[in-house]
Amino acid sequence: MEKILSATDYRNELKQRGDLPEGFSTGFMQLKFKPAELGTDQEMEMNMSLLILDKPTDTFAGTFTRNLFPGAPVKLCRKRLDSESFRGIIINNKIANVCIETGIEDSERILSAAAEQIGCGSAELMGSSTGVIGWRLPVDEMIAAVPGLVNSARTDTERNAVTLSERIMTTDSFPKLRSRRVCGGRITAVAKGAGMIEPNMATMLCFIMTDIDIGRDALRAMLPEIVGGTFNRISVDSDQSTSDMVIAAGSGLVPCDDPDAFRAALSEVCSELAEDIVRNGEGTGHVMRVAVSGAASGEEAAAVGKALVNSPLVKTAVAGNDPNVGRFVSSIGDYCGNAGINLPADRLEIRLGGEVIFSGGRFLLDPEKEARLADYLGDCGMIPEHKGWPVHGKSVKIDINIGMGNSEAIIFGSDLTHEYVRENADYRT
Amino acid sequence: MEKILSATDYRNELKQRGDLPEGFSTGFMQLKFKPAELGTDQEMEMNMSLLILDKPTDTFAGTFTRNLFPGAPVKLCRKRLDSESFRGIIINNKIANVCIETGIEDSERILSAAAEQIGCGSAELMGSSTGVIGWRLPVDEMIAAVPGLVNSARTDTERNAVTLSERIMTTDSFPKLRSRRVCGGRITAVAKGAGMIEPNMATMLCFIMTDIDIGRDALRAMLPEIVGGTFNRISVDSDQSTSDMVIAAGSGLVPCDDPDAFRAALSEVCSELAEDIVRNGEGTGHVMRVAVSGAASGEEAAAVGKALVNSPLVKTAVAGNDPNVGRFVSSIGDYCGNAGINLPADRLEIRLGGEVIFSGGRFLLDPEKEARLADYLGDCGMIPEHKGWPVHGKSVKIDINIGMGNSEAIIFGSDLTHEYVRENADYRT
Repeated sequence: MEKILSATDYRNELKQRGDLPEGFSTGFMQLKFKPAELGTDQEMEMNMSLLILDKPTDTFAGTFTRNLFPGAPVKLCRKRLDSESFRGIIINNKIANVCIETGIEDSERILSAAAEQIGCGSAELMGSSTGVIGWRLPVDEMIAAVPGLVNSARTDTERNAVTLSERIMTTDSFPKLRSRRVCGGRITAVAKGAGMIEPNMATMLCFIMTDIDIGRDALRAMLPEIVGGTFNRISVDSDQSTSDMVIAAGSGLVPCDDPDAFRAALSEVCSELAEDIVRNGEGTGHVMRVAVSGAASGEEAAAVGKALVNSPLVKTAVAGNDPNVGRFVSSIGDYCGNAGINLPADRLEIRLGGEVIFSGGRFLLDPEKEARLADYLGDCGMIPEHKGWPVHGKSVKIDINIGMGNSEAIIFGSDLTHEYVRENADYRT
Repeated sequence: MEKILSATDYRNELKQRGDLPEGFSTGFMQLKFKPAELGTDQEMEMNMSLLILDKPTDTFAGTFTRNLFPGAPVKLCRKRLDSESFRGIIINNKIANVCIETGIEDSERILSAAAEQIGCGSAELMGSSTGVIGWRLPVDEMIAAVPGLVNSARTDTERNAVTLSERIMTTDSFPKLRSRRVCGGRITAVAKGAGMIEPNMATMLCFIMTDIDIGRDALRAMLPEIVGGTFNRISVDSDQSTSDMVIAAGSGLVPCDDPDAFRAALSEVCSELAEDIVRNGEGTGHVMRVAVSGAASGEEAAAVGKALVNSPLVKTAVAGNDPNVGRFVSSIGDYCGNAGINLPADRLEIRLGGEVIFSGGRFLLDPEKEARLADYLGDCGMIPEHKGWPVHGKSVKIDINIGMGNSEAIIFGSDLTHEYVRENADYRT
């Protein structure tokens, strides 16, 4: 991704990354509806996507938002993790189905209609919704679309992961797909990211598919750990939505000869998708890659990194290509001082783009270095309004050693641009 | 403040609010310097202000930033809180004197020069600096300005709190002064707020003066409590600077007949200044007043309120006059879910502008209510680019009852506008 791609080149690159693993199909439908909450005749268009296995599997796992008020699909998925088998998941955009009186019932009715068409148990299906919070799903229109959706998955002989990555997009400006060949099989995952305008919530959805027979228990043991070190270490704007979820499923067609290799490949796929999500954050002009070392624990390292990437003053400075490194030190001091982490200033070392800017308790700055760092930030910048494909894969590299221990963490974050405000302040008005 | 004032009317209103208490004087100087760190001949102008008591007092107190890397003046002030007596404080803008090798020595030299001119002990003086982090104070130029500064305080026969409130401003767009007559004397306080462009840090400084003889111990007992319930309950952008401080001093000329009345008046003064600071936050288009009730503790109530006002998605929605109340619920759920506060959704009640928008676990919205709330937000809006005086005193009222206990807190926060990004991304470039 270091070169500038055209949209067509990017789509071709996604195709080359890898398709659906054996044993999976996809189906898609669009439907029109008029949200009752708008009180007007305004029509909206909803995408429904179906990701389905050829046969039921017992190898599936999920991790979900820690938001206290999750959407009905999250509640339903959590419950259905206890099912013996899993067949597929239906994903819709536009409406998130959160805190609605009939929310659970609405999701269940849509999944029951799909189960009947597929010929499976309703408890074998999951749902995933992203969009406006506080609106009700157009249940009748969605149920009417179900036969076409299921049929589309049956007739789609060309298995296609790129289309899935495109159809689950909402305001994402480019599709996100990563894949690895490992253990004689494949892991492919798609994600939709922190696109909040139209769904108006930083909902992160990720669907991981594999044909490798890793087994239910192993998958359920490794997924939360891998999510903790990848998706939970990114931040576009520090908000955790009501609908975030990562669902993984395996068709079990390829025997697993090396669980460690599988685990490593899955971790790479998740890590790359996590960075893709930040790169595609709303209005993101720079991706920050913050490597924190010397912490007492991985959690402490991650918290220090998140404090930096979530500081509005750091985010706006980076957006403006301004190496205003005083804000870096202040944000770390703010976090540590309030979290009771007693870090002596003289143990702290900070590098920006490889150059030491703070060490031994003081700033190491001079006019030439400031000019070099401003150029560096400019070179790492993207055009926030850019749509269609990632302009490049460069990140602003910030290395922080807090000199307290041996643990480390890598956090990806985004800057704060005019485009972010425009997309989030001007939606619906 | 409900009417729209002209800048002149506003200055007159400040004058009418109240002047310096008996026993205080002020002095001012401007000086020019060339920051060595810029490496150019670019000249900058610095304001120095002196707030001085006619006689030393033992009645003084201070609270400071919890940032782990405070500026040298904060370290010095903390130490000098142990002094037996206090005579005055010198405040400068442009450079914050943070993490500089000679930082403490630089501040001490300036204060020593002032002590010699005044004829007091150096330990009786404090310093307060706000501005760029990582640059060194122009010590020689500042020492050269000291005689003029002290002389200005001597010759300034018209005691003037309005001028003090104006001279400590950096990028504040209007001066902040509040005053109360109480116990036969007066409390007057000035503050500079979350103006971060030029000082590039959300430094909050507040200087409280009184001629009432409240006594050292009583003042030191009440100040942290009052700051905790006022200045610590505001948030413009969640960053706590390296230089924040509140300093209070009493000349002791008026006997205190009613300590409770004094305390109540001091609390009012601080509460009003805290709101002034948010209203004058960089690029603030709306002030949010979030009243959280039904919490298990005041801290819990404050934390829930801060989670709401610090959510970028809530802030941008309010900026856009968009009653996108799903974001309110999500931000509370995000905070409570991650903080381990097990708040059942059906106990949560949220009002916006007095209208119930969430109760009994679900949203209570309809098209007419959405339209009313959009009008309400529009009516509470200010022009972020406006300079000179507060356009009005309206706030967006958000009431949250979490139904868990009997504690409450009021939090003031600001929205997130284009102007905020412009001021903070485009500085120095």
